[in-house]
Amino acid sequence: MDFSIRAANVEDCKDIARMIVELAEYEKVADHVKVTQRDLEQDGFSKNPFFHGIVAEVPEQHKTKDGHTKIGYALYFYSYSSWSGRAIYMEDLYVMPEFRGKSIGKALMSKVAQLGLAAGCNQLNFTVLDWNKPSLDFYLSQGSFDITADMGYHCMRCEGEALEHLAQP
Amino acid sequence: MDFSIRAANVEDCKDIARMIVELAEYEKVADHVKVTQRDLEQDGFSKNPFFHGIVAEVPEQHKTKDGHTKIGYALYFYSYSSWSGRAIYMEDLYVMPEFRGKSIGKALMSKVAQLGLAAGCNQLNFTVLDWNKPSLDFYLSQGSFDITADMGYHCMRCEGEALEHLAQP
Repeated sequence: MDFSIRAANVEDCKDIARMIVELAEYEKVADHVKVTQRDLEQDGFSKNPFFHGIVAEVPEQHKTKDGHTKIGYALYFYSYSSWSGRAIYMEDLYVMPEFRGKSIGKALMSKVAQLGLAAGCNQLNFTVLDWNKPSLDFYLSQGSFDITADMGYHCMRCEGEALEHLAQP
Repeated sequence: MDFSIRAANVEDCKDIARMIVELAEYEKVADHVKVTQRDLEQDGFSKNPFFHGIVAEVPEQHKTKDGHTKIGYALYFYSYSSWSGRAIYMEDLYVMPEFRGKSIGKALMSKVAQLGLAAGCNQLNFTVLDWNKPSLDFYLSQGSFDITADMGYHCMRCEGEALEHLAQP
């Protein structure tokens, strides 16, 4: 199937917001999504954006029954490793279920890797849920490794009242 | 003990590079450190920096036997959660061993939290090694939680030849 990958622009935020919810539904946590289309427009497409995005599109003749032609996306931002230097972080990688198995996810991830290398990054980092075996297998097949399992890294988070409290001098 | 926390500037890169190696030695992986003082100067203190830093300093009368007054640091960058929006990521948090137990680490982390909240961030994210019990206990005592243990998130990485290969169209 024909598809194209391109940089996301502000007009894509409606579809990205839709697909963020679809991905969260797949991950069984749709109620965790607080980000809105407007948040994406402000945070990704103003000066000093917090993230960048790419979208996968199919031609009109392959649009979904709901009329969607934007059928996958990835979000990423630049980060840093104090050991390895410049890095790129892939926050999300999603392809709508009916378009899977056509190497669209691979093409999106490949594009993030290209963007990272072009910016001098030595690492592509991301997370995966341990029960999401198809995704984990896909990532391992692409030569990624699980630094939680292999090296013992745990992801930690502080948010909400704990973050407010921590910020008190 | 008196100490101060301030934004890092390019003149601090020599001390930050020294402390990055000290931290890696503590984490038993000093040979993993490829980042040099010059990398830090370029990547953190030019246009579109990949990270920001803060340093902890003590007065001259408390300098180490090697003459160091910069005795702790944290590196951070802004990131994004497609669920929660703006986030800040703390890449490193380090205080030299002889200055521990004086709330300097807490003050550095608190400053990162302040910077995050000031930028509209809803989350402070970071990683910890699962065998580093003192650090894990400290982070948990500050209201952080372990999203690997609690929710099953695993950190994944692609680098080196695998990253080059992934980037092939």
